[in-house]
Amino acid sequence: MSERTQVGIVGAGPAGLLLSHLLHREGIESIVFDNRSREHVQQRLRAGVLEQGTVDLLAEVGLGERMRRLGMPQTSLDFRYAQASHRIDFAQEIGRTVMVYPQHEVVHDLIEARLAAGGDLRFDTPVTAIRDLEGPSPTILAGPEGRPVRCDFIAGCDGFHGICRDAIPASVMKAYDRVYPFGWLGILAEVPPAAPDVTWGCHETGFAMLSFRSPTRSRLYLQCEPDDDPDNWSDDRIWSALHERLDVPGMPPLIEGPIVQKGVTAMRSFQVEPLRHGALFLAGDAAHIVPPTGAKGLNSAVADIRVLGRALAAYYRQGSTRLLDSYSETCLRRMWLVHRFSAGLCTMVHSFPGQSDFARRLQRADLDYMTGSEPGRRAFSENFTGLPIEA
Amino acid sequence: MSERTQVGIVGAGPAGLLLSHLLHREGIESIVFDNRSREHVQQRLRAGVLEQGTVDLLAEVGLGERMRRLGMPQTSLDFRYAQASHRIDFAQEIGRTVMVYPQHEVVHDLIEARLAAGGDLRFDTPVTAIRDLEGPSPTILAGPEGRPVRCDFIAGCDGFHGICRDAIPASVMKAYDRVYPFGWLGILAEVPPAAPDVTWGCHETGFAMLSFRSPTRSRLYLQCEPDDDPDNWSDDRIWSALHERLDVPGMPPLIEGPIVQKGVTAMRSFQVEPLRHGALFLAGDAAHIVPPTGAKGLNSAVADIRVLGRALAAYYRQGSTRLLDSYSETCLRRMWLVHRFSAGLCTMVHSFPGQSDFARRLQRADLDYMTGSEPGRRAFSENFTGLPIEA
Repeated sequence: MSERTQVGIVGAGPAGLLLSHLLHREGIESIVFDNRSREHVQQRLRAGVLEQGTVDLLAEVGLGERMRRLGMPQTSLDFRYAQASHRIDFAQEIGRTVMVYPQHEVVHDLIEARLAAGGDLRFDTPVTAIRDLEGPSPTILAGPEGRPVRCDFIAGCDGFHGICRDAIPASVMKAYDRVYPFGWLGILAEVPPAAPDVTWGCHETGFAMLSFRSPTRSRLYLQCEPDDDPDNWSDDRIWSALHERLDVPGMPPLIEGPIVQKGVTAMRSFQVEPLRHGALFLAGDAAHIVPPTGAKGLNSAVADIRVLGRALAAYYRQGSTRLLDSYSETCLRRMWLVHRFSAGLCTMVHSFPGQSDFARRLQRADLDYMTGSEPGRRAFSENFTGLPIEA
Repeated sequence: MSERTQVGIVGAGPAGLLLSHLLHREGIESIVFDNRSREHVQQRLRAGVLEQGTVDLLAEVGLGERMRRLGMPQTSLDFRYAQASHRIDFAQEIGRTVMVYPQHEVVHDLIEARLAAGGDLRFDTPVTAIRDLEGPSPTILAGPEGRPVRCDFIAGCDGFHGICRDAIPASVMKAYDRVYPFGWLGILAEVPPAAPDVTWGCHETGFAMLSFRSPTRSRLYLQCEPDDDPDNWSDDRIWSALHERLDVPGMPPLIEGPIVQKGVTAMRSFQVEPLRHGALFLAGDAAHIVPPTGAKGLNSAVADIRVLGRALAAYYRQGSTRLLDSYSETCLRRMWLVHRFSAGLCTMVHSFPGQSDFARRLQRADLDYMTGSEPGRRAFSENFTGLPIEA
């Protein structure tokens, strides 16, 4: 006889863990499977900026304690270009803020909360297949022996390289894709950030960013080749490029210090439609990838999960399938606006190989309009701090 | 002994004529040269939408009478896509409007006003060269015999194909250019417009527009091949494409009627920097071309001329060269934002050959954000009704 649960969750990243947490609060049982170890999942360095809606949701569901203590609220972002600083104060523009609180801390908080509540998290447990999505017995095959776990619903939270998306037949799934001709070299340095704001440098030699992970640790990024080797970047080359792209007259220059980690990330936009097939619901990176410009990866996963959590709650409480039936459309409506923002910013701030002089001047004009006009600043502010999540 | 004037103006389009008119009001003399006939200049079918600042300026300088009588004030624009109408009411968004009043009517009013005031307009008089721009005797050579006319200043208002721009040495001039992979088939039809608003159809088969020239004449556009032959477009094909791209459920369909004119326009963005070289000042199409999306051609010429008129007035009244010295920078600062708007809209509403599905969905998201969000609607409204003109 096979094991049973109400919602089988594939993937113990922030999407899967948060869903499990939200369902638990509604009295719905779930099992979370992940092929990696708890340590691996908890230590992956990922995004760092939480939208206000993400912060509010985490606080609302009892996950706000460490975040309030360790997180660093941000009220503005500094765009540096043309040898000047151009701040957008989104708190002032629209009364909303974001929080710098790294993804691995969110994952840490979620795992602690799930385990404290007796949640069923199965690390080191690969899901080898999901079956019967349109039939009476949706089933996850998990672990080396492929033990079947029967579920009412399956949440595909297993990321871009997961198996869930492929369970949707190609005949009903459409994929949208854009690969950018550059990557980011991500750098972790043991230095206090030189500025209080997350700072973007839009320079003709390429993009750079200064963010932070703590008052003594800076997180820095440099536009590089999409398949660049971190070993191409000596510490000297890194600091020299960071100074060139981020320092402007009148603002304190970057502080140099020991680089403790570096790695290259390729950049793409990706989306599948629909997000649901029978009993399977895709969420987070399993359904969509955004370039890191705009910090929408984690936040979009949280938005999906908020919608899915409410839909499953409505099903189990009231027997209503209405929100489940509209899940895909609800998430996609918001998600395409997020793609628009992420891809648009990505196009605005990077240097593109072979770019015409006209295109380069339009980028400058886009930056000028975004930072220098009231509608431009408000548009950036409402997107950066997070569009509303429908339910 | 050669003839003399204060400001020699090359080109009797709206830019040159308006400059001559503004200078006359300041007691500054000018001569306007054009190689074409008055009839040709007055009958050319061009742009039709005047920004509020253009309307205000024309009224302020005594050119508002016919415009008020014949012009059709517009308070909103209707974007049709995804089988629905999405109106942006810019009067409501930002309290500003535009006026449908065709360019040839503006030219008509300007010629009448100049002639009534005894203005020196020399039609059928080609300018063959301009000389000594950096020396003591800036000179225009005009007419078949190349008669010299000495000027304090020369205004290059002779359009994209004029000679003035080429008088700036290549070593100091930089040109920016983008050619779009489509054109517009412009159609004049003897039918009342089917809608009260200028209406844009953003359809996967291509862009279309409904505008008007009078209560009984519609001006229509269809995206076509950049080098399309109007003879490829039978009346049947035209109306069928217009219906497909503009009609949506719940709105009255287009009214068909006799097509009295059709022609193809290629589309490009073009800009030179700087706009001044010695005694020569470029304005209007001599300096920049925008795609017609956004209706910024005539309006940008008017903005240039407003700046140049004030600068020349300050020179002759107070002997100050400050505004002349900043002319190029002042115009360019605004103009790059106009390019951004024109090129951005152009990219948003047309179907591009070989476009990816992702790019197509982003276009849709751009339209959704522009029409569906408050900052999007305000950004469109302030750009469409006209950014401020500095002086």
